[in-house]
Amino acid sequence: MSNSTRCAGCKLLRRRCPEDCILSPYFPKNNPQRFLSVHKIFGACNITRMLKSLPVDQRAIAADCMSYEAERRVEDPVYGCVKIIYGLQKKKNEIELELAKARSEIVFHSAVDTQQQQQQQVSWSITNATQQSDQV
Amino acid sequence: MSNSTRCAGCKLLRRRCPEDCILSPYFPKNNPQRFLSVHKIFGACNITRMLKSLPVDQRAIAADCMSYEAERRVEDPVYGCVKIIYGLQKKKNEIELELAKARSEIVFHSAVDTQQQQQQQVSWSITNATQQSDQV
Repeated sequence: MSNSTRCAGCKLLRRRCPEDCILSPYFPKNNPQRFLSVHKIFGACNITRMLKSLPVDQRAIAADCMSYEAERRVEDPVYGCVKIIYGLQKKKNEIELELAKARSEIVFHSAVDTQQQQQQQVSWSITNATQQSDQV
Repeated sequence: MSNSTRCAGCKLLRRRCPEDCILSPYFPKNNPQRFLSVHKIFGACNITRMLKSLPVDQRAIAADCMSYEAERRVEDPVYGCVKIIYGLQKKKNEIELELAKARSEIVFHSAVDTQQQQQQQVSWSITNATQQSDQV
């Protein structure tokens, strides 16, 4: 490929972009930042090796996931995407707690409902008994 | 350091382990697998560069997070730790749905409670009225 049509990977690595370039389908020239991030975090050799080790139909997903991980690590060099995991776990725990509270509230309401139904039953029985005794 | 006391990083890279080795505190010799994973995924140069770029007190967390990410990618070369993120997001969405259902159940129960209280009030009023008319 000519210099103007090189993929983002080959352009950054300043090399010729072959027709069967392993990076080209996943790191197009119109998104140089995407390759820059994965190159900075994983290194071009590791990216190439990891992509080559996978079946062709799984490479796009792997490139997307590696780009996501790399971008998170560029943003946060200490926690990287582990920060996202911590955040989701924290949120999940909070919602689980809310759910547990809501469920115990439902149990309480059910108990109150049952009690009220029983009281109503008793009350109706008294009313009926009173009305029947009136008629006698 | 002598060969027998080299850290896992220097041992794998077959080099002398200096007293001030950047890898040594985070990749001890008794856990060679930990360095093997980060080396395979990020590469020793990237690990070293990333650790050096951070304040000393944040390096241990960064090494732990990179080890975690690397281990997930070794386990799953397509999704890596993005699989954990997907799983947590899915679980979080499921719990949120459960919570929404539980909350609407609470609203329903509250409405039923109110209705039953009103019916009971009416029922008591009838009973009282009947009893009073009996006394007259």
